[in-house]
Amino acid sequence: MLRRDRPIGVFDSGLGGLTVVKEIKKINPQADVVYLGDTARIPYGTRSKQVVEEFSVQDAKFLEKQGVGAIVIACNTASALATQAVSQAVKVPVYEVITAGSQAAAAATHSLRVGVIGTRATIGSHAYAIGIKDLNPKIIIHELACPLLVPLIEEGETKGEIINLVLSKYLKQVKQWRVDTLILGCTHYPLIERLIRSQLGNNVRLINSGEEVAKRLPKLTGKGKDKYFVTDMTPRFIKTARLFLGYDIGDKTERVKLT
Amino acid sequence: MLRRDRPIGVFDSGLGGLTVVKEIKKINPQADVVYLGDTARIPYGTRSKQVVEEFSVQDAKFLEKQGVGAIVIACNTASALATQAVSQAVKVPVYEVITAGSQAAAAATHSLRVGVIGTRATIGSHAYAIGIKDLNPKIIIHELACPLLVPLIEEGETKGEIINLVLSKYLKQVKQWRVDTLILGCTHYPLIERLIRSQLGNNVRLINSGEEVAKRLPKLTGKGKDKYFVTDMTPRFIKTARLFLGYDIGDKTERVKLT
Repeated sequence: MLRRDRPIGVFDSGLGGLTVVKEIKKINPQADVVYLGDTARIPYGTRSKQVVEEFSVQDAKFLEKQGVGAIVIACNTASALATQAVSQAVKVPVYEVITAGSQAAAAATHSLRVGVIGTRATIGSHAYAIGIKDLNPKIIIHELACPLLVPLIEEGETKGEIINLVLSKYLKQVKQWRVDTLILGCTHYPLIERLIRSQLGNNVRLINSGEEVAKRLPKLTGKGKDKYFVTDMTPRFIKTARLFLGYDIGDKTERVKLT
Repeated sequence: MLRRDRPIGVFDSGLGGLTVVKEIKKINPQADVVYLGDTARIPYGTRSKQVVEEFSVQDAKFLEKQGVGAIVIACNTASALATQAVSQAVKVPVYEVITAGSQAAAAATHSLRVGVIGTRATIGSHAYAIGIKDLNPKIIIHELACPLLVPLIEEGETKGEIINLVLSKYLKQVKQWRVDTLILGCTHYPLIERLIRSQLGNNVRLINSGEEVAKRLPKLTGKGKDKYFVTDMTPRFIKTARLFLGYDIGDKTERVKLT
């Protein structure tokens, strides 16, 4: 059972999961968050199921040792490939973005045509397609891996010619699907939501899975005290964290070794 | 001392180091190569010195256990940040690409103006600049991190509009340096050497550090029998290995866990 007085644990392959923390804080400003970003081994989205499971279980066990009352898998890739392994490895309840995003998309679509974009691993798992089909088998789902978006966003390429060129290559295919709902199946994509919207137009509803999982968490009590852990701390860490979260966490962050 | 009858160990953050194996095989076709690609934790080029040292020492110790007679650090980032740590951790001789590339560049330049492109970590270490200045303090060195090239090449974007746009952004700065010699300070860059040449013209000599380290290895005896290890094996592995090496190694490759 979820202990509401305990901190909520959130893990991600890197700092992208801070977009999920941001959404949790919007709804639950008083929640105590313990965050783990596996920045020494990011990205997860290009790796095999076996390796994503191994890394994710290590992440979740670390959070459990910190005394969290529940764990949120903020990383779409880890949610897609390792939810079962993580749930078996820890005793606290596990929330993840795939179920939340699937529910939101199934509720939002009128045309019963939903698109999903994500990393190669997330898309290869068909986790969103399976999740949505479970809710409504009539919904037609199209999926596309967009492997260049994460490295571009990580490098701060969130506007300008390069990101727009890469996006237009991917979204050309998305447009052909004629969906009315598109799941942004990666923590990084909300940072380029405006660019995606400007290329797709206003007739496509964009689903932010991080926002959706935050909405589905129970009301949490706490003092709004957060703690951040990363497995690597580079000079760019402060800047990247601010990009995803909107404020500085340098003085609240500690480097840990998981292995 | 180097045992010439032992296999030569080569490690890299991923499969890019296969470009170095290719160069070793050109000169020493009979050498037995044991290769380790840390594909579960690639890339190294965005990580801190501390983490690159930890990962590189694990890589080298694994190769030493395989009975290699010497170790080649094929990864520019690991060579730049972890050569000392690796040399202290293993008993066999250690070769690396930074020294080889620096020697070749110092010998090649007439104008005494040399440029270096590489990952964020390699460039941030100034390892090439230090290596070249040691050889000839009169040489002026310019350095530029090109962090988008590795993910683009890994995704097979080795020709077309996107890679040319990204390259032209980086090479605009390189052109302003007016160097006569440019070090390709990353195992991936030889794959886009033709694009770099077509944008820079023929007056700039390009140095392939992998080729240079291969030239500097002693003559090796063996049966040309190779063994490949990776820390993760994704469905894309075969395709990517072929991209870097030119032939299939699927049946000679095994997945290992380092931690």
